[in-house]
This record gives sequence, structure tokens and C-alpha cells, in this order.
Amino acid sequence: MTATTEGISRRSALGLIGGLAVASAAAGVVSARSASASASAVPADDVVPFRGEHQAGITTAAQDRLHMVAFDVVTESREELVALLTAWTAAAERMTVGRDAGPVGAVDGIPEAPPDDTGEAIGLSPARLTLTFGIGPSLFRDADGRDRFGLADRRPAELEELPEFAGDQLDPERGGGDLCIQACSDDPQVAVHAVRNLARIGFGTVRVRWSQLGFGRTSSTSTAQTTPRNLMGFKDGTSNIDAEDAAGLADHVWVQPGEGAGWMVGGSYLVARRIRMTIETWDRVSLAEQEAVIGRDKREGAPLTGTREHDEPDFAAVGSDGAPVMPATAHVRLAHPTQNGGARMLRRGYSFVDGTDGLGRLDAGLFFLAYMRDPRTSFVPVQQRLARSDALNEYLRHVGSAVFAVPPGVQEGEHWAQSLFT
Amino acid sequence: MTATTEGISRRSALGLIGGLAVASAAAGVVSARSASASASAVPADDVVPFRGEHQAGITTAAQDRLHMVAFDVVTESREELVALLTAWTAAAERMTVGRDAGPVGAVDGIPEAPPDDTGEAIGLSPARLTLTFGIGPSLFRDADGRDRFGLADRRPAELEELPEFAGDQLDPERGGGDLCIQACSDDPQVAVHAVRNLARIGFGTVRVRWSQLGFGRTSSTSTAQTTPRNLMGFKDGTSNIDAEDAAGLADHVWVQPGEGAGWMVGGSYLVARRIRMTIETWDRVSLAEQEAVIGRDKREGAPLTGTREHDEPDFAAVGSDGAPVMPATAHVRLAHPTQNGGARMLRRGYSFVDGTDGLGRLDAGLFFLAYMRDPRTSFVPVQQRLARSDALNEYLRHVGSAVFAVPPGVQEGEHWAQSLFT
Repeated sequence: MTATTEGISRRSALGLIGGLAVASAAAGVVSARSASASASAVPADDVVPFRGEHQAGITTAAQDRLHMVAFDVVTESREELVALLTAWTAAAERMTVGRDAGPVGAVDGIPEAPPDDTGEAIGLSPARLTLTFGIGPSLFRDADGRDRFGLADRRPAELEELPEFAGDQLDPERGGGDLCIQACSDDPQVAVHAVRNLARIGFGTVRVRWSQLGFGRTSSTSTAQTTPRNLMGFKDGTSNIDAEDAAGLADHVWVQPGEGAGWMVGGSYLVARRIRMTIETWDRVSLAEQEAVIGRDKREGAPLTGTREHDEPDFAAVGSDGAPVMPATAHVRLAHPTQNGGARMLRRGYSFVDGTDGLGRLDAGLFFLAYMRDPRTSFVPVQQRLARSDALNEYLRHVGSAVFAVPPGVQEGEHWAQSLFT
Repeated sequence: MTATTEGISRRSALGLIGGLAVASAAAGVVSARSASASASAVPADDVVPFRGEHQAGITTAAQDRLHMVAFDVVTESREELVALLTAWTAAAERMTVGRDAGPVGAVDGIPEAPPDDTGEAIGLSPARLTLTFGIGPSLFRDADGRDRFGLADRRPAELEELPEFAGDQLDPERGGGDLCIQACSDDPQVAVHAVRNLARIGFGTVRVRWSQLGFGRTSSTSTAQTTPRNLMGFKDGTSNIDAEDAAGLADHVWVQPGEGAGWMVGGSYLVARRIRMTIETWDRVSLAEQEAVIGRDKREGAPLTGTREHDEPDFAAVGSDGAPVMPATAHVRLAHPTQNGGARMLRRGYSFVDGTDGLGRLDAGLFFLAYMRDPRTSFVPVQQRLARSDALNEYLRHVGSAVFAVPPGVQEGEHWAQSLFT
């Protein structure tokens, strides 16, 4: 089937009953949010274009809040899966301009139908909502090696399950997933609303596997943004690839023509890691030791060999005692591109606090998100190195892990990942 | 011991080693946040006064984000408990004006000491941070009936453990607590930073029992605020008591002279309930049914007997079929003051999403917070009524519960709950 943004009835598309019909503009249905949006026009600054060469939400200046969700596909029908992607794309595009996922009122003239939008974002600006879609390795072949949707021979070589890293303490329920959607917005209610409505549309076709809220961005992805601090209190992501760095993006983020799977050109690969910080332990470490572990000073964020945040670290510098100023196990040294054959990633992580762990400690940390052209040559070797030697490991625990192929941007008349299915 | 805001060394006060000294202005220590605050002055609008007749964070126009924490006291020493309250009060006041909990740099000239602030709020505005302190019944007498701190005869009669309500599915690890701190701010990182630093200061004296982030306010506590929507998509708290309603506050929120425990005059009682919403089920209910369950229309928030949000419900109105327009089991009817002998509360709840429940559903809902003069005559009878008959019960599960006495405001030179200990 084909679909445009405005003209799709998910009820007929999916053959499901009750509550799944997306707004049909042809039927003249006007949703509450669009009505309120036209009454008080949404400022253009609040809308990030949904369609384009690349998906939004990667180089978009990192929004303040995250709600990310991973799904397992529960249908065995390729047709149903494609219908869902079509319906999702239409709803996603509507929501990114501040409209409802579907009408809140009577649907298709059936007053008994549940509203097609859950309502909690009525009246809110989209607050730069982006919805970024990805596909996990398990969609191509399940754990038993079964080609679930006739896609096995289209799996990009770059999309491999991540290897186990030293010290990993992964909870399978916090990782993996056939599909993922990263919702970012400056308003958490808008991000939560989007994920919830997409999950609702997917009911019967997909099942939520895990979901993660992030309350504060820990990366900048634009030179216009200041560098935020993570829950260790340090500035994070100072040398990130940003939206203004076209060469860096081409070299390290976007899949280029002629490489890998053709359907992924213009796409990227996303690594997600739920990294619990043992902040109570960290907080009992002296400032000098914290700075030696990170390799930067805490207040300014300058490398220990410099004075300003954006000074390049000098890994050769030695102190009066003959020891390197930047310790051999400092996080900044081990993660730095010059120490990793030039490997770089666009980091886009968020801080999280998910209550308490039952042992009187906050369940807090970094939800690491990074986009890259090939995890096999960037995230994997860097993380292997970090897992072996990083002084920071004493204060971290990787408890969730996932990798996704993030298809290129959606063109007019297309749905998410259309290039994979055609 | 006595303490002023500026002149206290927690290290000496608590006799603990490492990392627990609060900034001593006398020692000339300037913290990073205060330095940055003086460089770019914090706008007055961003600061809510910490001291006053009542604690801040009750009638303060509800901030956007919440981090609430409950503690169990692990010391048996009343002196240590009072020392902690003194240290907490000093750190809390500092943070509410955008300063650090303590210095980030070398403390008391000891470079090996851990920084006294964890750093993640450096450079951030306090964003209207309020820190509101409460005391649970278990501080007065533990489960074995032991008078732990010589306070048993000072327990206010109003502060009783809540009774069990029909349908309660309480998880003890998500409820109770000897002490609580409600941190509200428009910036979640500021609220998280405050709770984390207070927990850190309390290390060895208290232990985190539970903590809850709320991403979006579900109540207005000022006529200047619009009514937000909860995760059912409905406007919530339309008829809330607000800061401008002095008579309502005196009648329903603030403990009055001559009643109950004298040390509580000017204080209030806080009921906290973690209410999980089965949103996936709710989302499959028709709009008409949702509106009948709530008793309001979804878009405008008007009672079913009216047309505008603030119209008073007409519980006597009957439709052409002779049935009440507002159903007998509608939430609005059962919770309304006119149906509950005039009982009102100041509600101050937040929406939460804490990932997934392992069954493919979002762990989402309402973290209900309400302040009142006497829970025995307000929350308890109202909730007993709701638990029996509310049509909404089908979509709710109360999984956490706590009640706290919230002492009056802190005067100059005092610490939290000083009136209880003198």
C-alpha cells in the first residue's frame, strides 16, 4: 500500500478494530491540536522538519528531553509490518508539527471509537519534537536464525550485535529490540505523548520491549549550544561532531554511496547504552582524583594539559615528576580520536534518574546514544579500549545495550525505512 | 548546636570524614556556582525565597519538574539527626539561590577532600527551585512502637499512617519513609542535583528509601497558571486551591494556631501516592466513555453539565432519559468538595514514566501529591469514597503511599523542623 501524510486510514490498513484509525483529512476531521495550532500558530522555531535527506533527531541541535522506546515485532506478516511503518510515519509527521497522532473526537463518524490521540499534548507546542526510527539486527534474523520478513539478505554488514565488553552487566530486558524510536523534544510531555501514541498505534503488531526517559541532554550537537554537564558533574561531549561540521558528518556519521547496504545511504547507525553511574561512590572521590579519572578539570572542562574547554589535549605533556599530565587511564585520553585511529561518533546522550535501586542508591546515570557510520570501526574498538583501561570503569556499569540501523531521511510519499522494503 | 546559613562546618558537626563539609563563608571559600551567579546574576524571578512563614514548594506556582525522595533515618542519635537537619537546611538554602550545596574546590584547605557539591548544576539557574521537608509517622515511633528520638509524645494526631483503601496494591518499597524532601524546579537537572546532594550530605545518617521523578506538573497552584493535562489526556486539578485563595489555604491547607501539635502551626500535611495508570487499557476506551468516567469533556475540560472549564458542575442535572448528566460514578462527582462535606486539598502532582513494566506496557501514571490541614478529614474520607465507587479505578492502581507532616517555614537562624526539636 501507499500512503500520504494526510490520506490514510489505519483501521482499514491494519484490519484492526477500535481506536486505530489515523485522521483522514479527506473526511474533514480536524483534530484538537491542529485546531489550537491554527488558533495560535506554532512558531516555526518549534518545528523541526520531519522529511529530508537524513532523519531528524541526529544533527538536530540536541533537545532538552528524551523518551526512547524499543519494540519487538509480534506479527509475522511483512504486510502488517509495512502497514505499521506507514501509519507510524503519518502519525509521526503530524505530531512533529504539533498536530495529534489522530483525531481526538469521533473517528470516521463512529462516536463509539476511542479517540485516535491520547490527548495529553493538546495545546502544547511540538517543542522541536523529532522522531528518529531505527531497526535492530533481530528484525533481519531472529535468535534462531530465522529470516522473519524476507529481509535477511538486506542486513547491512555494519549492523551486527555488539560484542560483549569487559565488565558488561547487561540486563536483556533493557537492551536489544527489533525497532526503536528516539523521541526528543524540549518538552518531556511532548516526547512522552509521541512515544505513547506510536506504541498505541502499534498495538497488536509490536510490543514495547524497553523505554527510557532522559531528563537532561549531555551532549551538544551544534556549535550554537553550550556543553552540558553529566551526572558526574563534568562537561561531556566537548569534542562532539556537530551539525555545522559537514566533513565530520560525511566521514563519521552518514553512510556514503557505494558502501554497505545501498538502502542505508544517507542513514547512520545508532548505539544505545544504559550506563548506570555509581554516583554515591563517585561523590566520595576527591576533586583531584575525579579530574585525573576524566582528564579534564571540573569547573571549566579544560583538558588537564590546557586551560580552556576547547583546548586540544596534549597527550605527550609530562609533569615535573616525569609522569604524563594526562594519565594513561584518563577517560579523555582513551576515548580521544587521535588515540583511536581517528574514530569519531556523534554523541547524543541524556542523563537519567529512575528512582532507587532498592539498596538506598539512586538508579542514575547516562543513557549513551551515539550515531556513526560503522559501529565495527568506531564504537566497538573504542569501547573495547575503554572497557579494558578506563579509570572511569570503577564508577560505571553498562546495564543496557542496543544497536540499530537508522535509515536515511523520509522523502515525500515515503514511509520510514521504505528503501529497505522496496 | 546552633547554626547559621553561612557559618557551619558539617564535618565538625557530624564528626564524619571526607566530603561532608559545607562551605564556610568565614573561611572565604567561593563556590563555582556562586562565582558564576555573581558573574551573570541570577534573575530574581528564578529564585523562590527559602525562608518564610510557610515552607516554599506548597503554594509556589507549581514548577514544571519534580524529584521527590524519602529517607529512612539510620542513626539512633537525636544529636546526629538534628545536625543533619542543620546541614541540610544550610545546603538547601544555598541551592535555592543557585549556589552549590558546598564548595566544588578544595574544602577547608584540604585538597584531598571530595568536592562538597557534585557539580552537575554549575552554571544553571535555580529555575525556581524549592525544597520542601516532611516527617513521616515512623520517625516518632517505629513499627515496633519504639520512641526512637524522644519525639513520640510530639507526634501530631493528624499524622497517622493512612488506612488501607479498597484496591490498594502497595509496594512497601515505594512508600513510607521517616523523612521526605520534595524538590521542584523548572529545570529537572536542578531538582535532581538538589536531591542528590542532600542525599550525599545525609550519608551515614539517612538512607534513600524511594525516589520519584515527575516530568510534568499536573496541577496549577496559581490563578496565573493554565491547567495542565495528566496522562489520561484530561485537564486535572481545575478546582484546585491556589496561592491567591487565602481563605481556602487557611481553611484547608495550613495548620492553625490552637489545633493539633503546636510545633506544626503554619505547616501542613502531605499525602503522596504513586498511582499507576493502565494507559494501554484507557486508550482503548471510547471518548464518550472516558468523558463519562471523568465527568468532564476532554478537549475543554468543562464538566459534563457545563461548557467551560471553570463552570461549576451541576450534580442535580438530569438528561432527557432521566439519568443524571454527571454519572454517579464520575470521578469529578465523587471527588468534589460539595460531595465530601467541603473537604478540599491543594494538589501538586506530577506525571511520571519510569520505563516499562516487563509486560510491554509503560510504567506511567500520576505521582499524586496533596497538601492539607488534616488528612483524617480530607484525603482519607475522599479516597475511601473514590476507592469504593470511582469509575476511574478500573484504570488506576495505587502502588505507593506515604504521609508526612510538613513543618512550618524556616525562620532566620533556624533549621528544618526546629520547632519539633525545641
